[in-house]
Amino acid sequence: MSDSEICLHVCVTCRMAGVADEGAPRPGAVLHGALAEALGQEGAPAVRLEAVECLSVCKRPCTVAVSGPGRWTYIYGDLDPGSAVETILEGVRLYAATPDGLVPWRQRPEAFRKGVVARIPPFKTSSAA
Amino acid sequence: MSDSEICLHVCVTCRMAGVADEGAPRPGAVLHGALAEALGQEGAPAVRLEAVECLSVCKRPCTVAVSGPGRWTYIYGDLDPGSAVETILEGVRLYAATPDGLVPWRQRPEAFRKGVVARIPPFKTSSAA
Repeated sequence: MSDSEICLHVCVTCRMAGVADEGAPRPGAVLHGALAEALGQEGAPAVRLEAVECLSVCKRPCTVAVSGPGRWTYIYGDLDPGSAVETILEGVRLYAATPDGLVPWRQRPEAFRKGVVARIPPFKTSSAA
Repeated sequence: MSDSEICLHVCVTCRMAGVADEGAPRPGAVLHGALAEALGQEGAPAVRLEAVECLSVCKRPCTVAVSGPGRWTYIYGDLDPGSAVETILEGVRLYAATPDGLVPWRQRPEAFRKGVVARIPPFKTSSAA
């Protein structure tokens, strides 16, 4: 399985609590831009970055989801758009290095340990069940 | 796409807040048992029921996830093990009737509207992207 089949979804819709400025860039959009730039750098993990309109974790921005065929999907929230890029890249690297997406708890970046919103087992098709 | 490819994961691990009895059945296990019985009845939606050890939504039991190839995955929490079976079956029926898993907000059972924890877009493989 190729690392390039790993997908990083970033919610670009939700607002930070207490930010009333309707015209301000959404924090997820800021994070998405920073991730796009970082993922273009040499040595960055090979993942597909996708903006998504709402991951339904509206009260815990910024929110991302990491998924891949045959792997558990993880959703993380409470990520700071200014400082979470390195955390996310490190978490994705660790995820990509596993066959099933299960990174031991202690190895996960702290923001991933604290920010986990949910996880879902890999989808088994009928033929694979 | 067949309805039978829809999967309903039920977390059987988490405890209800305030329940100190270590020997008491976990609420998710109770819900899983009730769903297994209900899904065996005539007219029940054709879904694959799977127990899962922890969906990482530990503070909002009971928790379930609904997924299917090409469909958005939804995670729901705060479900009552005693009364949620009909809600879940109705939600799964509506989900199964869509091509992409997106059920209009107003059509969703109330417990699904209130209990949504997160949603994730369908996974696109490189070849399908």
